[in-house]
Amino acid sequence: MDTPRPKQDDADRTVAELGEFAVIGRAVAGRTQPATTLLGPGDDAAVVRAPDGRVAVSADMLVEGRHFRLDWSTPEQVGRKAVAQNGADIAAMGARPTAFLVSLGCPPDTPVAVAAGISEGIGLAAEAIGAGVVGGDLVQSDRVVVSVTVLGDLEGRAPVLRSGARAGDVVAVAGRLGRSAAGLALLSAGLTGADRASDESVAALLDAHRVPTPPYRAGVEAATAGARAMTDISDGLVADLGHIADASNVRIRLDRSRIGLDPALAAVAERVGADPWEWILAGGEDHALAATFASDADLPDGWAVIGDVVPGDDETAEGSAVLVDGRDWTASGGWQSFDAG
Amino acid sequence: MDTPRPKQDDADRTVAELGEFAVIGRAVAGRTQPATTLLGPGDDAAVVRAPDGRVAVSADMLVEGRHFRLDWSTPEQVGRKAVAQNGADIAAMGARPTAFLVSLGCPPDTPVAVAAGISEGIGLAAEAIGAGVVGGDLVQSDRVVVSVTVLGDLEGRAPVLRSGARAGDVVAVAGRLGRSAAGLALLSAGLTGADRASDESVAALLDAHRVPTPPYRAGVEAATAGARAMTDISDGLVADLGHIADASNVRIRLDRSRIGLDPALAAVAERVGADPWEWILAGGEDHALAATFASDADLPDGWAVIGDVVPGDDETAEGSAVLVDGRDWTASGGWQSFDAG
Repeated sequence: MDTPRPKQDDADRTVAELGEFAVIGRAVAGRTQPATTLLGPGDDAAVVRAPDGRVAVSADMLVEGRHFRLDWSTPEQVGRKAVAQNGADIAAMGARPTAFLVSLGCPPDTPVAVAAGISEGIGLAAEAIGAGVVGGDLVQSDRVVVSVTVLGDLEGRAPVLRSGARAGDVVAVAGRLGRSAAGLALLSAGLTGADRASDESVAALLDAHRVPTPPYRAGVEAATAGARAMTDISDGLVADLGHIADASNVRIRLDRSRIGLDPALAAVAERVGADPWEWILAGGEDHALAATFASDADLPDGWAVIGDVVPGDDETAEGSAVLVDGRDWTASGGWQSFDAG
Repeated sequence: MDTPRPKQDDADRTVAELGEFAVIGRAVAGRTQPATTLLGPGDDAAVVRAPDGRVAVSADMLVEGRHFRLDWSTPEQVGRKAVAQNGADIAAMGARPTAFLVSLGCPPDTPVAVAAGISEGIGLAAEAIGAGVVGGDLVQSDRVVVSVTVLGDLEGRAPVLRSGARAGDVVAVAGRLGRSAAGLALLSAGLTGADRASDESVAALLDAHRVPTPPYRAGVEAATAGARAMTDISDGLVADLGHIADASNVRIRLDRSRIGLDPALAAVAERVGADPWEWILAGGEDHALAATFASDADLPDGWAVIGDVVPGDDETAEGSAVLVDGRDWTASGGWQSFDAG
């Protein structure tokens, strides 16, 4: 029934033409597994080492057009972003990512290169942090959906929860703030970086949006240094510290002079007519880490104090759970998972 | 700007109106966690016990219109099916499911009752097998997407792989075959069961499609009894045994007289003009288990011999890796993940 077709490189074919098992085979081929992977992909389930008898585990889903755009990011960047987003959740517990599982939904006419590129990005980013990609699924969906689960090793440490902050603690961050939101604003303004290779500050912000780089080591080091509460910044600094404040029944006071305003960020904000503090305080997806420490703790390298913790009923902090320079932060307030109904 | 609306029950509202955190809060409320859940939902990651220092892990994605239809199944049934599909992968390793993570994508106008119903089905089905629901995500997508990851405890046993079958083994199944495919055929023929409560055989087959019931305990018992290879039947008996044959470099011979034809299945097949053997041999999603055992092994309760294993180069078994009554099985050959390109 079919006439013979010229032989094509697989990457030019669609996932429906190549088929589930072949696409998965391509994605899995050539990936090395760390020692924590006792049994990799290919059976009904994988088996991963959990040396201290516990496993930290988290899951996130990224949807095309909602969490990424394939005209703004390469498939590999999408894969790397998925690893960063999930890996940061493990780092925020003070754990080390050991294994990722990836379920990929895509339309049948998706080029194999897209599915393979996402898998490649996930594989390379996982490998770079010493984790394996041990399993997943490939199914048909209307749009590209990347659903990732990450396992982590607490290495004998207690997990650092959101609920451990105490009045008197200092609030500190590791990693950079506002850069993913700045990159998103640039992309939304039509600056995709293609014709701006010479403008390093723009290119760096675009990269920051396309592939966030969580400070994985800082999470483990914070746990070792006795961090009392920790979270990754996915919804925005104020929103995510709000989760710590709520879970710990405290209030948090941030000091913008301690956060500081990166001149490159300020310059780009001026160019696109934006408020850089909106990016820094409410921009999500940098996947920096925020933690509280006892006021006399020695903070590990890479952590900078930006505020302090006061009692939940502190009179100097009426209003919101998180104050910026003594006041409510009244801007957009962080990422919303759904469009307004 | 908004005029006040009459207060509604949350279930009548949409997920966008209620918001991500409230929907997740509803889904999590009232669920009990087993002792294996050291830290449940609500932080950046969960922490699950992995008593023997290893964790079995698997992931599957279910897409509306592809893996389920909300006019054919209730949201709770969809949730239960997602647990069965994933839990069976853990059972097929000889492990016990301990924890599920669920990432749910849905359109903003999805009724809260749909999201809550899926979560409820997942929670109840997990609870029934002693597992927790420890985390996940809720995001906006074009259609309902349910992405599940399951963790399992090998309880000190070696995982039972697909690659362990040896010539001379017997092939056995636990659980029933062809019933999910029969239920799907009935639904496709317009028999949704609504006006057929009196016809028990039809109702049972519809149930088998809507909520498969994997023989979890049979997986653990097979591992204890020394099963050499095992898989769950998700793509179809012949297709999934083909995976064992390929991984083990053997051939498998099935004997229909040993599989047997359930008279109820035969009667329903006749009614809709179908071949019941197509359902039994090529129908997926029953999530029964298939395994091979040494020929002198004592099979645990619930396992029935349906064939044997011969060498990969056996002359009596030329052609396919899996023969039925000595011949190639030339029917549809199992579930395809993508529509033909």
